[in-house]
Amino acid sequence: MANIKDVAKEAGVSVATVSRVVNKSPKASQASIASVTAAMKKLGYRPNAAARALVSQNSNTIGVVVSDVSDPFFGTLIKAVDQVARESGKHILIGNGYHNEQDERQALELLINNRCEAIILHSKALSDEELIAYAQEVKGLVLINRHIPALDSRCISLDNKHGAYIATKHLIAQGHRHIACIASSHNIEDTHERINGYLLALQESDIALSKNYIESSEPNSDGGVLAMTNLLSKSIPITAVVAYNDHMAAGAIEAMKTNDIDIPSGISIVGFDDDLISRFVHPALTTVRYPISIMAEHAARLALSLSANNEVDCQPNLYTPTLVQRRSVSVL
Amino acid sequence: MANIKDVAKEAGVSVATVSRVVNKSPKASQASIASVTAAMKKLGYRPNAAARALVSQNSNTIGVVVSDVSDPFFGTLIKAVDQVARESGKHILIGNGYHNEQDERQALELLINNRCEAIILHSKALSDEELIAYAQEVKGLVLINRHIPALDSRCISLDNKHGAYIATKHLIAQGHRHIACIASSHNIEDTHERINGYLLALQESDIALSKNYIESSEPNSDGGVLAMTNLLSKSIPITAVVAYNDHMAAGAIEAMKTNDIDIPSGISIVGFDDDLISRFVHPALTTVRYPISIMAEHAARLALSLSANNEVDCQPNLYTPTLVQRRSVSVL
Repeated sequence: MANIKDVAKEAGVSVATVSRVVNKSPKASQASIASVTAAMKKLGYRPNAAARALVSQNSNTIGVVVSDVSDPFFGTLIKAVDQVARESGKHILIGNGYHNEQDERQALELLINNRCEAIILHSKALSDEELIAYAQEVKGLVLINRHIPALDSRCISLDNKHGAYIATKHLIAQGHRHIACIASSHNIEDTHERINGYLLALQESDIALSKNYIESSEPNSDGGVLAMTNLLSKSIPITAVVAYNDHMAAGAIEAMKTNDIDIPSGISIVGFDDDLISRFVHPALTTVRYPISIMAEHAARLALSLSANNEVDCQPNLYTPTLVQRRSVSVL
Repeated sequence: MANIKDVAKEAGVSVATVSRVVNKSPKASQASIASVTAAMKKLGYRPNAAARALVSQNSNTIGVVVSDVSDPFFGTLIKAVDQVARESGKHILIGNGYHNEQDERQALELLINNRCEAIILHSKALSDEELIAYAQEVKGLVLINRHIPALDSRCISLDNKHGAYIATKHLIAQGHRHIACIASSHNIEDTHERINGYLLALQESDIALSKNYIESSEPNSDGGVLAMTNLLSKSIPITAVVAYNDHMAAGAIEAMKTNDIDIPSGISIVGFDDDLISRFVHPALTTVRYPISIMAEHAARLALSLSANNEVDCQPNLYTPTLVQRRSVSVL
């Protein structure tokens, strides 16, 4: 493929002149625009986004780092960011961080090095200190589903503890006291906050349960099958379950059905996220709504405003989960 | 942020020298490596991916264009490509094409201009001619879920017609003759091929049905609710349904339940894709498996081989859908 030097040679101008034409600089003369355009056409030269980004220090691109794009939760997050990008005539670049320190850093570095002007980062593995340093370097960096006090105005997060708290409270209000907790095995803030919300609700109602009532596994449907199967094996009385997310809840329901336990008359269950799947499992899943779409839209607008040095609306950055009642909980 | 000129000035060398150091060129002297590295550190200069891509004409990046990342089908596709990328120490960039000509072109142009060495393209709206031109320009371009005879060796596709054919044949084998078809309203090849497969199976069994038996809608669960509701309103006898995908099937099941129709004793249904959701709807959905994960992995390896001018294994590029029997079909 022809490069910028070939074009300069063909047009009889300097590389800098070609660059000015490509980047639509007001300094480019009409004559140079004509000769460079003709040379580009003749050589099949494609104006290079890398070259333009290098000059403008701006790729017109919004970067998004999520844990895993194949998880529908992150798919929804990305789609909301993409909607904002498209409104502004921008594009998105996406990286996977896999809740892993090295992958998160690598994905973020790739986006920074590609000069994304705004970045929405879902990071669970990088330390507060490292994220604060990145935020100082990249003015359009916004964190989603994470709260770091020093970056208060640039963190869009959910009150995870409150979510698990209202799920557990709802079960207690229906008369349940033997409530198991299916937790995530990922050692991230969300896991701990949701367990704490569950424990707080139990404590407020003077319910003391052994640690046996908490079972951790991978936060997907197979993990839900495994965690529920383990709970059933423990010979402890269980009338209800709060699950880390809807996919774990769907797996738990599958494990209960395999063991001829009716839901909700045998065991009630509450999920988390209000993922699409919660509407289709049987019985339809009572769950806690994670408003990820509006949070991601908010994060994208905030990141663009910060990158453009625009004044930022003072919106609350901590979102509140709400209960969605369907058919997986019964009165005891 | 400091730029490459600032670094050159600070180090007392030329921009070209800085570039050689940044790009780890063997031509860089030890002295220039030392002075440039010190200057970069002092100024907080970040080696720019754009600059490196400009020099190497290679961003070490695999590009992926899908219709919509928030659709779990495409999430699975992307994840498979990302696995191959990670094995090779590469990263992925993702764009959404939304089954729309302009968006597909824009997403593809962005990836080409960012010098992605390999690109996996899921395009439904661009013409064969335009895709052939792109394939000539980008040697590492591979099409997925599309077949263009002139690009035979660079197209990884599924026999969509056969998928709908085996779904319909399965229902006929259980005694069904009044089989409705829930189709996608997107005017893409998959839609037409799947309708043709349905019609071929009916024809082979001498079943003549009016066009009323085909109902089109958006290929998601809400579209499935709408299409099934429309079918039920038409006062035509229906004992079975083949759906365009599992999400439409899940919506159709919801609409049937709302109308107190038992599945499968009242109406049987077969989905398409074998999406995660098919395992959790009630009854668990009999469906046609779309092996998107292995197809995407194949596409990614092929794209990397082509971009590196490596010899390419002669694997068959047309994949065959298979039937997954669960509990949504009964014998009539």
